[in-house]
Formats: sequence, C-alpha cells, structure tokens
Amino acid sequence: MRTRIKELREEIDRINRELLGLLAERGRIAQEIGRIQTALGLPHYDPVREAEMLDYLTRENPGPFPNETIKHLFKEIFKASLTLEESEDQKAFLYSRKRHPEPTVVEAGPARFGAEKLVIAGPCSIESRAQMEETAAFLAKKGVKVLRGGAFKPRTSPYAFQGLGEEGLRIGRDAARRHGLAFVTEVMDTRDVEMVAEYADILQVGARNMQNFALLKEVGQAQKPVLLKRGMSATVEEWFYAAEYILAQGNDQVILVERGIRTFEKWTRNTLDLSGAVLAKQETHLPVVVDVTHAAGRTDLLAPLARAALAAGVDAVHVEVHPNPLVALSDNRQQLDFAGFERFLEAIRDLL
Amino acid sequence: MRTRIKELREEIDRINRELLGLLAERGRIAQEIGRIQTALGLPHYDPVREAEMLDYLTRENPGPFPNETIKHLFKEIFKASLTLEESEDQKAFLYSRKRHPEPTVVEAGPARFGAEKLVIAGPCSIESRAQMEETAAFLAKKGVKVLRGGAFKPRTSPYAFQGLGEEGLRIGRDAARRHGLAFVTEVMDTRDVEMVAEYADILQVGARNMQNFALLKEVGQAQKPVLLKRGMSATVEEWFYAAEYILAQGNDQVILVERGIRTFEKWTRNTLDLSGAVLAKQETHLPVVVDVTHAAGRTDLLAPLARAALAAGVDAVHVEVHPNPLVALSDNRQQLDFAGFERFLEAIRDLL
Amino acid sequence: MRTRIKELREEIDRINRELLGLLAERGRIAQEIGRIQTALGLPHYDPVREAEMLDYLTRENPGPFPNETIKHLFKEIFKASLTLEESEDQKAFLYSRKRHPEPTVVEAGPARFGAEKLVIAGPCSIESRAQMEETAAFLAKKGVKVLRGGAFKPRTSPYAFQGLGEEGLRIGRDAARRHGLAFVTEVMDTRDVEMVAEYADILQVGARNMQNFALLKEVGQAQKPVLLKRGMSATVEEWFYAAEYILAQGNDQVILVERGIRTFEKWTRNTLDLSGAVLAKQETHLPVVVDVTHAAGRTDLLAPLARAALAAGVDAVHVEVHPNPLVALSDNRQQLDFAGFERFLEAIRDLL
Amino acid sequence: MRTRIKELREEIDRINRELLGLLAERGRIAQEIGRIQTALGLPHYDPVREAEMLDYLTRENPGPFPNETIKHLFKEIFKASLTLEESEDQKAFLYSRKRHPEPTVVEAGPARFGAEKLVIAGPCSIESRAQMEETAAFLAKKGVKVLRGGAFKPRTSPYAFQGLGEEGLRIGRDAARRHGLAFVTEVMDTRDVEMVAEYADILQVGARNMQNFALLKEVGQAQKPVLLKRGMSATVEEWFYAAEYILAQGNDQVILVERGIRTFEKWTRNTLDLSGAVLAKQETHLPVVVDVTHAAGRTDLLAPLARAALAAGVDAVHVEVHPNPLVALSDNRQQLDFAGFERFLEAIRDLL
Repeated sequence: MRTRIKELREEIDRINRELLGLLAERGRIAQEIGRIQTALGLPHYDPVREAEMLDYLTRENPGPFPNETIKHLFKEIFKASLTLEESEDQKAFLYSRKRHPEPTVVEAGPARFGAEKLVIAGPCSIESRAQMEETAAFLAKKGVKVLRGGAFKPRTSPYAFQGLGEEGLRIGRDAARRHGLAFVTEVMDTRDVEMVAEYADILQVGARNMQNFALLKEVGQAQKPVLLKRGMSATVEEWFYAAEYILAQGNDQVILVERGIRTFEKWTRNTLDLSGAVLAKQETHLPVVVDVTHAAGRTDLLAPLARAALAAGVDAVHVEVHPNPLVALSDNRQQLDFAGFERFLEAIRDLL
Repeated sequence: MRTRIKELREEIDRINRELLGLLAERGRIAQEIGRIQTALGLPHYDPVREAEMLDYLTRENPGPFPNETIKHLFKEIFKASLTLEESEDQKAFLYSRKRHPEPTVVEAGPARFGAEKLVIAGPCSIESRAQMEETAAFLAKKGVKVLRGGAFKPRTSPYAFQGLGEEGLRIGRDAARRHGLAFVTEVMDTRDVEMVAEYADILQVGARNMQNFALLKEVGQAQKPVLLKRGMSATVEEWFYAAEYILAQGNDQVILVERGIRTFEKWTRNTLDLSGAVLAKQETHLPVVVDVTHAAGRTDLLAPLARAALAAGVDAVHVEVHPNPLVALSDNRQQLDFAGFERFLEAIRDLL
Repeated sequence: MRTRIKELREEIDRINRELLGLLAERGRIAQEIGRIQTALGLPHYDPVREAEMLDYLTRENPGPFPNETIKHLFKEIFKASLTLEESEDQKAFLYSRKRHPEPTVVEAGPARFGAEKLVIAGPCSIESRAQMEETAAFLAKKGVKVLRGGAFKPRTSPYAFQGLGEEGLRIGRDAARRHGLAFVTEVMDTRDVEMVAEYADILQVGARNMQNFALLKEVGQAQKPVLLKRGMSATVEEWFYAAEYILAQGNDQVILVERGIRTFEKWTRNTLDLSGAVLAKQETHLPVVVDVTHAAGRTDLLAPLARAALAAGVDAVHVEVHPNPLVALSDNRQQLDFAGFERFLEAIRDLL
Repeated sequence: MRTRIKELREEIDRINRELLGLLAERGRIAQEIGRIQTALGLPHYDPVREAEMLDYLTRENPGPFPNETIKHLFKEIFKASLTLEESEDQKAFLYSRKRHPEPTVVEAGPARFGAEKLVIAGPCSIESRAQMEETAAFLAKKGVKVLRGGAFKPRTSPYAFQGLGEEGLRIGRDAARRHGLAFVTEVMDTRDVEMVAEYADILQVGARNMQNFALLKEVGQAQKPVLLKRGMSATVEEWFYAAEYILAQGNDQVILVERGIRTFEKWTRNTLDLSGAVLAKQETHLPVVVDVTHAAGRTDLLAPLARAALAAGVDAVHVEVHPNPLVALSDNRQQLDFAGFERFLEAIRDLL
C-alpha cells in the first residue's frame, strides 16, 4: 500500500505542475486585462463577473470537492489576480517598508525622528503661559527636543475642561520657540487644521480620531509632520491603513504612536501593545513612538516600559510632564512632576 | 468574650452616629460653598485645596488606620461633597432617566422612535438610483419606515469605495421621499453637517466617530435627529457621554445604537453587547436601536439577535438589505437580499 | 479595447474550466491516499511532504504571481484536500448538528433539557441545611425543576470561603430530592468526579476549568449529564472543542452554558455573548443555557437578558437565588432574593 | 463672598479633624473586636451586623447626603475596619513584596531564577529521544540552563497530539540530566503531580489551568519549584492570587510567567502585557519570566520582545526551539530552529 501511495503522490506532483502552469497563464492574462482597465479608467474589481464565474464553476463541479470548497479556492485565485492587477498600479502600500526600504526621517525643529532616539514631553493640557514657560525651560535644559501640550482636548465629558483653543496654541508655540523645541499639539476638527498648522511643528491626530477619515485626509494635505496615535481598539492593520490615508494625500511625514490598547486588565489604564510598535518598525518605514503615559496610566510603570520600548527598537518615547501634576486640569494622576521626570530620564539614559 | 464584643459594638454604634452627624454638617457647609462658587463662576473642584486637606489629615493621623486608608476615606468624603455641589447646579445628566423619566420620542418622517417598534433597513452604500429605488419600493411595501444608505463611507482603506457623496445623498433622499420613508445617512466631517442635514431626516454618527467631539458638537447644533452609534470599544459610560455632547448643544433628538463591541471572539464580526442596549433603555430616556448586521457580521444570526433585542425591550433593529448583496460595493457578505429580508421580518414579526 | 477585454475573459473562462478539472482529479487522488493512510493508521497531514511540494512549486514558478502567492494558493489547495481526507474518516465533530441533526435531549430528574424551556436556580454556595431546604421548597413551588448550589467553590482568593465539600453535596442532594428537583453542582478536581457524581444529577464544569482537559476527560467517563460553562475568554470554537472532549469519551449528555465573556466594559461583570449561545444552538445539537447572573453581575439586568436569551431560542436560563443575599457567603451582590426571583419569573413567564 | 468661603472652609477643617479623631477611635475598637474574633475562631466579616448598621444609619440620616451616599461612605469605613482586622491576622499576602522585600531566588539545577538572567528553551512537545537529545546538547552548548518540553499537552482539540505522557517525562529528564540542564514540564492533572515531580525540576502550571484551584493546591504541596503561567484572560490581580494559592500551601518556590493576553488584535497570537510582567516584579518578590513565543506567536517578534522584557527588568525569557519546526507535532509555525535560536541569542546577548 505504501507503493501505491508513492504512485499516487507522483500523480499529485504532475497535477500540481499543471495547475502551476495554468495559474501562470491566468495571471498574465489578468495583468493584460488590468492594464486595459487602468487605461479606460475602469475599476479592476468586477463583482458581477466574479459572481458569474463562480456560478458556472459550481454548476460544472464534478466533485469530490464540495461547491463551497470550489468557490473558496477560486475566490482565492480571483483575489490573487486582483492583487496582481492592483500591484501594477500601485506596487505596494505607501507605508510599506517593502516599497520604501530605508527608514523615513521626519524632521521637526531640532528633532530628527527616525535618525536619533528622542523623548517627547510636556503637559497633558496647556493651562497658562507660566506653566508652559516653566516646562519648556526645564525640558530644554534636560536635552528634550520636542514639547507636547494640548490646546484642543478630547474629553469624555462635555463638561470637562476642553482646552484653551487658539490662545493655547500661541502659548505652546511661544514657549517652544523660546527654548528651541519642536511643538506638537492635537488637532480635532478638519476646520482647524490650517490654523493649528500655523502654530505647531507637528500635528497630532489623537487615538479617538484615528479613523476620523475626513481629518486624516485634511492633515494629509498639510505641509506639516503628523503624529498619528493608534486607536484604543484599532488593529495594527487599521493603524497602518490610517497612516496610508495621510500618505496617499501626499504628506509623507508621518510618525506612528503606540499608546496602549483597551483590554480587560484593570491595574493599568490601557495595555501597552509593544508587539504593535515592533511590527510598525518592521513593516513600515515610518518613525515609531511609544506613549508610555497613556499606555500605563500610572507613573510607577513609565521608566520600565520606556526602557522596554527603546530596547525593542522604537525611535522615541512620549511622556507627560507637568510642573505640578496635583493641580493639572486633566489627567492629573498620571503626569510626572519635574523631579519624577529627572528620575525617569536617568532610568532610560543608557538606551537613548 | 462575646459580652466584650457586645460592649465594643455599642461603642461602634455611638461613633457611627457621631460620624453621621458630622457628615451631615459637612454636607450642608459644602452646599453653601457650592452655591457661592456657582454665583462667582468658580469651579467646584479645587485640587489644591484637596491636596492641602489630605496633607494635614495624614500629618495628624493618630492611627491605627494607615495614611493610605485615611486618604482614601477622605477622598470618598470629598467626592460625595463635590457630587452634592454639582447636583445643585445640574441635578443630573441630560441623558439621564432620573432627570427626564418619560421616554423621549424622536420623530422622523413616518417613524416615531420610542413610541413604536421599528425596523431600519437599506443598503450599506448608496450605489445608484436604480438600487435605491428598488430597495425603497420593496421596503415600503414590507412596512419598513426608515431607509438607510451611506453616501459618505468610513472605509478602513483609502483605496476602497468612499461613497457617492452629495450625489448619493440626493439619490437616497429622493428614493425615501418617493416611498414615504425617513432617510438616515452618515455624516463624517463637521464641514458637511449642514449639507447632509438638507437631505437626511436623521444624521448618523458612526462608530468610528463616536468620540469625534467636534462632530458631536456640530450635529448637536443641527435641527435634525441624530442616530449615535456606540464606538467599537466604547464603554457604555462613554457612549452616554457622547450623547450628552449632542444634548448639551440643545439637540434633544438623539437615538442610541448598539452595534457590537470588539472582543477576542472570531466567529462573529463583533460581539453584540445586549446588556449595553438594556442599560441604555434603563438609564437614559432616549430611544435605543440594535444594529444586528454589524454586531453579527453574518446573516445566519440576524433574526435570533433581532428577536433577542426586541424581547429585551429595545425600540428598533437595524439591518442591511441590498437588492443583490453579491455585487454590493461594500460589506457584501453581511447584507440580506430581499428574500432574506422577508424571512427575517417573518421571524421577528411577533415581537414588532 | 473593450473587445479585447472580452476575448481575454474568454481565455480566463477556458483556464478556469481546466483548473476545475485538475482540482477534481487531484481531489479524487487525495481521497484514495487518505483511505490508504487510514488503513495503515498513518496521519493524513504530512508537513514534510507539504514543504517539499511548496519548495518545488516556488522553484519552478514562472511568474507573474510572486512565490508568496503561489505558496498561499497551493496551501489552500492542500488544506481543501486534507479536509476531504479527514471528512472520510470522521464526517464531522460529535457535537455537530451536521452529523446529528435532531437536538439532543438531556434528562435529569424531572427536567428535559432541549425538550422544554427550563430555569436553573439556586444559591451560589451551599451554606446550610436550612438555606437549601428553604430555597428548594420555594423554587419547587414556583415550578423550577433544577436546583443549583456549589459545594466546591472556585474562588479567586485562597482565603475566601471554599465551600462545604462533601457535606455540602449531601445537603444539596437531600434538599433537591425532598422537593423533586434535579441537583446540579460543580466538580473541580478529577479525583472528586466519582464522589460528586454520587450526589449530583448534573455535573457542572465551571468557566475556569473549561480547558482543564483532564477534568473534561474524567466527566466524559461519568454516567451523568455534564453542564459545561464557556470559559471567560474562550472562543465559541474552543467551547465546542471542550464539549467534544467530553463527547469523545462516550458521554453524550452535555449541556452548554454561555455565561458572559471578559471584555473592556466595566458596568457589567462580563459581557453576555448571545451570538455565542445562538451559534451553539445552530451549530451543535446540544441543549444551550444562558447564565444571566454571571453574565450581568447585577440584578437589574437579569430579566431583560433572560427574555432576550429565550426569544433567541435557548433552552434554559440560569439564575442565582438566595433566601438572604445580603448574608450570602459568596457573590452576595448578584443573587436574587425570593421576591426578586418571583418578579424575574413573572417578567419572563410568556417566553417559558 | 470669598471671605465667606474662607470661613466655611475653616468650619470644614474643624469637622475634618473631628472625623479623623472618631475614625481613629473606631479603628482601635475594631482592632480589639478583631483580636477577640480571632481568639474565638469567628470570621471578621459579619454581613448581618453590617446590614443592621447601614439600616439604622440610613433611617437616621438627616441629609443633605442621599441615603445611597451615606451607605457608600459607611461601607468604605466598614471595609477599612475589616482590612485592619484582617491585617492583624495576616499582615499581607505571601506574594507581596511589602511583606517580603528581598527577591526570592528559586533554584533548579544550575539555574538560579531571580539571581541571574536566564533563558528557558526547548520544544513545545517532547516527541522522541533523538529530538530531545539533539536539542539539549545544542542548548547546553549555547549556555542555556533550563530545558522545556511538554509530555502532557493541553490541546484545544481532543484529536490533536496529546503528548507522550510518562515516557515523554523520562525522555525529557534524561536529556536534561545528560547535559546538566534543569527540566521544566507541564502537569495538568492533580493525580499526576507526584509522578511528574519525580521527573521534573520545575512543575509548570499552564495558562489554561491558572485557575484550576485543585491543581494549584496540589503543586503547592509538592517539594518542587512551580512555574505559573498567567491565564490568557487573567487580570494581574488574579494571577497573583493564583500564586498565593501555591504559596499558602507552603511552597514558596514560585516563578511567574507572563505569556500574552487575549485581545482583539489579529497579527499576533496574543498581546504581550509587559506592564503585567513589570507589576509582577514590583509588587511581588517572585522571579518573573516572559514567554515571548506564546505572546507573539510569530518568530519575527521574538528577539525584539525578549530585548524589551529584559530591559524592563524581568529575570528570564522563555522561547520554543525545535530541531526541525516544520515537522513538529504541535505549534510548528512558532518554534525557532537552531539557526534561528542562535540569531535570537545573539540579538539579546547584551541584556543577559
């Protein structure tokens, strides 16, 4: 019986080769169709045609595979052909390292994301000139190159402090300028992109807006780097697609930020998905940041998580710092004070 | 020794009574402070003052409770006082059934959400006049009162079909008008709200935009009902806060839609959180819809889940229907065809 | 150019037909190999052989499909063949409704799971003869047929009440007998199965032990019905596999219980996955129960969720009832008192 | 009005001080009651007594706090008192670093967990003498001190390879001995603990059994180190409690393993919760391992995640290695071959 198996396997090998030949032929024809469709401005994907093909294939199916299997196998073949056609147009995703093997360097003020290890720091919300001046002066002295601070704050409750708006932007920009820092701040409304871009060196798209596609397109048309936070329940794939929205508009200055995902765990605010950050480094050419403040939501985890992120190869860590966290207008339990930030910096110094 | 326990418990009772008296006195003073703060336009919550009180209380703590416990207990007392002050201003959230015990009825065309059991149906995307005309005619004949259809589609990929835009709105509106249906469609950009409101009877805020606070505020200023989908990883509390954003702008015509949350389960697209829908009915006065299509992502679960939702007390179910799902431009595996919709309707008939 | 597309599509059709013929031939040969392997006691899946085939196919790949695509397509073909071979042996899983189309009826005392709508009720823990006697008398009077009560309690903390053990079993059994009820109780240790089976009419495998495979095998050898709870983060597929472990040992008296899964939501103890329960009804022939107590963790949701479950087609609901929940030794916030249970029963009466 | 606020705040300060004094007095009395209860063998927690106290406090509540608030505040006070009483008995959890500040060192063969950085490596399943001999020889040469290999395999399907059982234990033990390695292997059944302990240097409790409390108690009585994996949806708190079950039986040789938790993300098998591992290092005195193989489920992430874990301070990483992963009987896509392991080791060398 083992001899018989051997014989049958030779048959299988022969059939495999014939399948291979037919698939190749089919692929070449699909490519030609694709080129014509592109020339005519027609879509590559034609669901009616697909439905018809599946229809007659299952009608003529002699067995032993059930129709469901035949449908499945041919759908895979159709999909492969479609991919081939599309890759003629596009080769690959703009974010993909396969298309763009060298890492992209995003420059903002003194900071060169992707070319040096960086720390982004600053308060959750911009509250006053004094607060930002004090923070910027302190951070600059510590060697930090990027100042964060929110002027438009996404708050769960409509009754919570919503940020100082344009006045906040002015305060943040001035503090950053005075101390030679880049200034990053969040934009939440398509109508505000132009205005925020006048003040900020880097536009932040927050986690809650990662799939606000109108906003993604709008910042894609701005001439400013964009720091794109991963949504709190976005898959890595969806995060990359969100970046593609920005890149597809012509803005190639995108920085990806992993900030923790939502899980059942209660002792941390979110669960840092370091694998997601590593995948972002491996699969894309964009700089990658880990926001340890939002991932952990507690100050005792910031240094170990930042060490982990840097050792795993990310380009920067993001941490919230406030002159007096106790009186901060938002997130007052998770921001570091200046002494805490100094200890944090000391703890990660060897990995910067 | 049991006698001694009895004596000690009498001591405890006496102390409890004294604590009760002191708390009451403290509460009355807090209320008075709150009234003055409101008059002066000052915030009720003063973190610096709290920090100072905790500071001296732990400094003077004679034991045996550890400082952490003392802090915790007083924070609870502070929180209770703050709640008391805030309730003076606001009594309760606008969404709350405690504040507004009778259910809100939202009227849109022939539909009265909250006063009758409804079915919202229609295709995922608006694709052509013929498709919408055919669908609207069919649905109207089946007694459906609300037609859905997307003209602006939130798509994960920037290269996927993004909807027909304003032309789609016109097609959807016309089909609905012709057959006496209300028309609901999604708006994704603050800049489009006014335009979409010209065509739609109900503005939909999609799951991905549930915390797009700029959009929530904008639809809160529209004179149209808003159908607010729960975000795919939003807690029930965050969902209610999102509704509050809209209500706080003066628009009290909000319909809540549970559409499944993101979990680890792989055999369904999302996990329907029916408890969330029930909580929405119990805690708010707003009409509640369950979107079985997005919750399940597979047609074989639609009828049982719709039955469940209606039996649990929700006001409407939402289901996607397409004349020919196989050739639909989006979500083609989860839309019902007309025959499927008839079976669906038959299966839930006794609960409508 | 459109004519050219037409011509090319005819080519594609011809190739599709040839592919179909080759696949059919390949399928028949694979079936023959499969039969020989079964006769020889060899496994169907041979990863080395697969690796060799993929190796020469990618070596000989003439393009234009990239090697990754060729590998993917042939892996799908291999998988389809393997499925074909395996279905020769086994047709389908023991749990599968495809194999066993009529619903299984599990009898336990007066209860016939799968043939009538049932309520399982009783306290979380068995605490005393008086407690169980009072509960059993009350429930029997209300028409309940199945009494639950834990003698071995899975507690997160080793210092929490662990149950009365065998004494508890005796109490539970006696109370059930006296009032003509079936008695269901949890078993947690392979060494206890025989003993628990002497007292219980139904053996419960708890959520935390759903993948305690040694226990599954052991209860599979008992001559008693088994109530199998879904693990708190088990996929539906894993739950069915756990049932298969029991069925494969020869015990076909399995009842499936959905009791909520672990998600990010905080206002409920777990998230009831009603889709999972519906899938269990559709895909398996086993009776399905929804445990509303553990799913919700709060008494105000019990009736609406039980209504939903029954309307969706499940066979029974499970709810915890205690004469005095306030003094219960475990889970004292989520158990109904007698008056609460009467209201619960009233609220679901029309669906029983 | 601001003067009036100042006056009222002085009143508040006075009341705070009186509350503090009363709480202290109450605490001392509760401690005395607690001591008597311990002497009498009575439980500290008396729900009937609590219910009575809450009852009269709400009956006598003069306002303005609503009864719900009064209940809540007094429950917090009761809880603080109970904690005080319990801490008299127990001071703190056995796992807690507060109770046991120096890190525990667990010795197994040549390995000293907690005192040196380690790598645990070996195949998923023990398949043959040749496989284990080859692996052990290779790993020993590379400086690895702990050999893993499963003889009892927890498999989702009852039809999948279940391990070689005792023969596998013998093979694993012999291979480890011959090359001076410690041998760690999983035990799944309380009845097998004694037998497995004869062969293994470290008993592994797998993720699926993390809340198999019978098994935890049984390994707690073994005289062998226990490697306790975190359940795939266990909170950090539940994981620590599971360790407490083992410690409470007198076995203080527990090693904690984080191996990824179950989330919505699809590109990795699980989501490594590095925060959990860091919390385990901070809150417990036990050695902590990160299992990068199960966390990632893909070989391209192993080195970056292992680097991250070591940089964050964990004591060891765990990785699956097989002489020929392609033909492995289980998990064949995620095991490293020898060349892959050498690259892995090279990539983490500077952090060992």
